[in-house]
Amino acid sequence: MTNPVLVEILRGALVESVHRGAVAVVDADGASVLELGDVEKAVYPRSAVKPLQALALVESGAVDLYGFGDEELALACASHGGEPAHVAVAERMLGRAGLDATALACGAHWPSHQPSSQALARAGLGPSALHNNCSGKHAGFLCAARAMKVDHRGYVSPAHPVQREVRAAIDSLAGIGLSPDCCGIDGCSIPTWALPLKNLALAFARFATGRELPPRRAQAAARIRAACAAKPYFVAGTGRFCTKAMEQFGARVLVKTGAEGVFCGALPAQGLGIAVKCDDGGGRAAEVMMAAVIVRLMPIGCADRAALDRFVHPVLRNWNGIEVGRLRATQMLLR
Amino acid sequence: MTNPVLVEILRGALVESVHRGAVAVVDADGASVLELGDVEKAVYPRSAVKPLQALALVESGAVDLYGFGDEELALACASHGGEPAHVAVAERMLGRAGLDATALACGAHWPSHQPSSQALARAGLGPSALHNNCSGKHAGFLCAARAMKVDHRGYVSPAHPVQREVRAAIDSLAGIGLSPDCCGIDGCSIPTWALPLKNLALAFARFATGRELPPRRAQAAARIRAACAAKPYFVAGTGRFCTKAMEQFGARVLVKTGAEGVFCGALPAQGLGIAVKCDDGGGRAAEVMMAAVIVRLMPIGCADRAALDRFVHPVLRNWNGIEVGRLRATQMLLR
Repeated sequence: MTNPVLVEILRGALVESVHRGAVAVVDADGASVLELGDVEKAVYPRSAVKPLQALALVESGAVDLYGFGDEELALACASHGGEPAHVAVAERMLGRAGLDATALACGAHWPSHQPSSQALARAGLGPSALHNNCSGKHAGFLCAARAMKVDHRGYVSPAHPVQREVRAAIDSLAGIGLSPDCCGIDGCSIPTWALPLKNLALAFARFATGRELPPRRAQAAARIRAACAAKPYFVAGTGRFCTKAMEQFGARVLVKTGAEGVFCGALPAQGLGIAVKCDDGGGRAAEVMMAAVIVRLMPIGCADRAALDRFVHPVLRNWNGIEVGRLRATQMLLR
Repeated sequence: MTNPVLVEILRGALVESVHRGAVAVVDADGASVLELGDVEKAVYPRSAVKPLQALALVESGAVDLYGFGDEELALACASHGGEPAHVAVAERMLGRAGLDATALACGAHWPSHQPSSQALARAGLGPSALHNNCSGKHAGFLCAARAMKVDHRGYVSPAHPVQREVRAAIDSLAGIGLSPDCCGIDGCSIPTWALPLKNLALAFARFATGRELPPRRAQAAARIRAACAAKPYFVAGTGRFCTKAMEQFGARVLVKTGAEGVFCGALPAQGLGIAVKCDDGGGRAAEVMMAAVIVRLMPIGCADRAALDRFVHPVLRNWNGIEVGRLRATQMLLR
């Protein structure tokens, strides 16, 4: 099955590039609300499932044990920009559990937030694992291991108790047994299990509504959602779509980006879970796809629509700030 | 027409993402040697035609007037990394024509070569237009304007004598009249005219062989090719495919990357011009496509093949250096 073109890149009067992809939107009973392209195909969810992975942190009791608030919980769900405030919260989380950055197994990379990266270089410093966009998630895994009273070392292995908890939580939310044959290694070295796009959407519908979940898990999910809605800056960072969407919509929208063109989200009031995958891994297109799905499915007023429109039809500017083109969602995606 | 999948991204045992695209390889008479996908569709060539755009610099007489050697000519064809040596040559070119960086209209951006970018920040500096990957091409345009004794200001306008020369040169090489309806604005603010992929390949076949060209233009093309072969570091930079391919093969291969998944090249000894376009604009895939086409069409020995193989099947490593997957050219592309 060839997935449809969902996003076009315009330059001047011509379409310069196109992005194909698939979209699955389902309710918490698994009923399909919107299907575009092949939603049965297994995709690695990558960082888009960080809010689901954070269930292990809450359910381990670490959040209460270490007195974590919304900032820590939001950062555990984050692909953050490595801005100073992100780094500080990751460090604080580790400190509460009696650990430091040396325990992180995510690897180091320069902050994706350019001013933060440049400030680090200006200070004659380089990046540490705390600057890794996944450091909050990893700090969460480490804190969960401590609260579970298991050795925190080796926490990125699929066989480690924390990863087994993570996997079991996603299994139950997605309504599918994740297969070891579909396990890849993520950019930050943790396991990422591929699952059909529609099951990924189902997992988010259940996460957003608590439907079909044991009360304790439903409460943990609600707590994570509330933290992301309260502190969206800690889920991504300055100027980022995830942050801006949740600043605009609060608890009405949960969105989380992942590598290779995956984007997941939920509209809790509508009871809907959303999963999109851009075939070619293009993050610019996945963002347009997610913004367009929200516009299409959520009842929103003019101000909200205007806020989203610049993500549905983002303008392309060149190095001189001249408008040279734009991205646009195709009609199939818009309706 | 739906273009075929030419490159797959593997993670673990699964194909995580795919890239579709088109490939045109033709000889200097326009006879097709290899066609994959829609080669009639117009694409913006972007920076992939910089070697052709440099014809205006040579034909204006500026190269002799200002005593330019291979470094300057190679830099005029470059999408360089903004490394100190690149910046120095761009500055030297402008100086010879009595100009400086303030004449550049390309805009400023941080060097794409990360160590150079970090060194700049560490020194408390920011980027100038000299660091723009196109600064050598722009310096070339400015020098051409001076040699042509026209006002250099406004040299990025399609109506400026230098851009008219550039357009006429591409027109004649590609065997097609570039239409104002197909003119976009490039990232560095110069015009980019869309043309069918097969005509782009034809332009490179003629550029590589001199066939169908007036003697003066054929000589200018040979001089540009020789400069790129002699100084490939100045066409791209440290670790870059264009540089490595031309270091490996010398004058046997000309390759030039462009934005949005365009890659052009030539195999002069075979008399072939090559143009590829990745549908989604993915540069990682365009590079694999170009490497695979070279392996397919050029008679090469084991050492040359080994050098190219890591570009045909590049390994993906995560932040910890762990191999997590690889890119691979599909069978349709390999043969």
